[in-house]
Amino acid sequence: MLKGQKSILELRVRYVETDQMGIVHHSNYFSWMEASRAELMRDRGMSYRELEERGYLLPVREAYCRYRKSLKYDDIVVVESWLMELGGASIKIGYRIYKKGNNKPSAEGYTLHPFTDRNGKVVKVPEFFRKIFEIQ
Amino acid sequence: MLKGQKSILELRVRYVETDQMGIVHHSNYFSWMEASRAELMRDRGMSYRELEERGYLLPVREAYCRYRKSLKYDDIVVVESWLMELGGASIKIGYRIYKKGNNKPSAEGYTLHPFTDRNGKVVKVPEFFRKIFEIQ
Amino acid sequence: MLKGQKSILELRVRYVETDQMGIVHHSNYFSWMEASRAELMRDRGMSYRELEERGYLLPVREAYCRYRKSLKYDDIVVVESWLMELGGASIKIGYRIYKKGNNKPSAEGYTLHPFTDRNGKVVKVPEFFRKIFEIQ
Amino acid sequence: MLKGQKSILELRVRYVETDQMGIVHHSNYFSWMEASRAELMRDRGMSYRELEERGYLLPVREAYCRYRKSLKYDDIVVVESWLMELGGASIKIGYRIYKKGNNKPSAEGYTLHPFTDRNGKVVKVPEFFRKIFEIQ
Repeated sequence: MLKGQKSILELRVRYVETDQMGIVHHSNYFSWMEASRAELMRDRGMSYRELEERGYLLPVREAYCRYRKSLKYDDIVVVESWLMELGGASIKIGYRIYKKGNNKPSAEGYTLHPFTDRNGKVVKVPEFFRKIFEIQ
Repeated sequence: MLKGQKSILELRVRYVETDQMGIVHHSNYFSWMEASRAELMRDRGMSYRELEERGYLLPVREAYCRYRKSLKYDDIVVVESWLMELGGASIKIGYRIYKKGNNKPSAEGYTLHPFTDRNGKVVKVPEFFRKIFEIQ
Repeated sequence: MLKGQKSILELRVRYVETDQMGIVHHSNYFSWMEASRAELMRDRGMSYRELEERGYLLPVREAYCRYRKSLKYDDIVVVESWLMELGGASIKIGYRIYKKGNNKPSAEGYTLHPFTDRNGKVVKVPEFFRKIFEIQ
Repeated sequence: MLKGQKSILELRVRYVETDQMGIVHHSNYFSWMEASRAELMRDRGMSYRELEERGYLLPVREAYCRYRKSLKYDDIVVVESWLMELGGASIKIGYRIYKKGNNKPSAEGYTLHPFTDRNGKVVKVPEFFRKIFEIQ
């Protein structure tokens, strides 16, 4: 797989995700990114759930989002995610969020994650994980 | 303590808690009830956090809310909670939710919780818990 | 359509929907019910979004859920919803929530909604709405 | 007022804000920042609610958070916020988040907001707003 190959998650905006501005509340984009990186890993053959079962966690060290165009209730949203960097003990994921059918992104961002064990201690990226992204 | 003695939690409505109707989304009332029953237990001398540390969990078996009057962003909200029933292996808590300064409740409801251990197995209400509610 | 005919919504549990018990936080079930009743209406030919655009709102007057079996991160969840009652000025929707592939529901519940105009005033169920449920 | 003068919001971590890692889910920090900037404005004499009532909105254009140390259920959290920049048509707010009693921040971040009217059109920072921050 190429490092930058994208995975796609489609979702429909829920009512609970709106706020009184009549648009999606910005905090939800981070939960969508999270759901999207789960698909990125699933597409490579290892779900995040399985990663946790193997004793690894990916807490969030940094999160950033740039909002360009608001999204609304019932919109169908496409979240693209891809591997930006795979460090010795961390991973950086990029995201672009579109209203389905639109060419211009509604938002874009990234998250940075250390690999930790169940006690929160930072550990090296395990070989099996490196392998699923075919960067050796 | 009398069984029905109330505890009080005050909170201010957050923007994220509103939806595009311009009012508080109904799902948040259940999180407020949860925060309120934590105060109910803290007032009796044992925080819910401590209860979990002792190995007991109170998952939700039933949750009900009747909404009477909508609440808005930045409103100060008063959540009353009290013990409705203490069964052999469960607890029922009642709630009334007010906009501060109003006499008529904005909402009222209850939650029912089994006592379980960390594996989710239902267990008897422990004596120390029964004691803090002085019902023996 | 028969009054009780069901609509189905499938979703995957998001990480943000879990809590420190390691299960889905109970408040999310109400947001799932909400997403599910949107599908119920869409299946009848009028999305909830369109209903709001026509000037009608369906705020929540009552919400109830009975939790039977916990759901976990990454589970695929099936939410069934159906019309329970169509009153003169209100609607009651029933729900059953399953882990996909399971026969026994993980939860079940209902919500009751008045029809209101944009100012929150209760109004009669409009004829076009009654019609889509073919109950005249 | 000095540009950098801080406002303080204290809150207690709610159970719903935790996830199955046993810590606060990262998306909640953005809602805390939001509640905190509401206090920043209230401290200057104009609540965000009042700003909206005057026809101005502050949607989020950028949001960033750096997580340093996890927070847990029932922790008391202190959120500091301050004006970082007041542009011609936008405002940038900085945040530091502490577990109460700790010297080292658990997280820090910023948000950037355009001023818009009710239709989402970007407008100049109104004079009355500039005035409450005493930067003329």
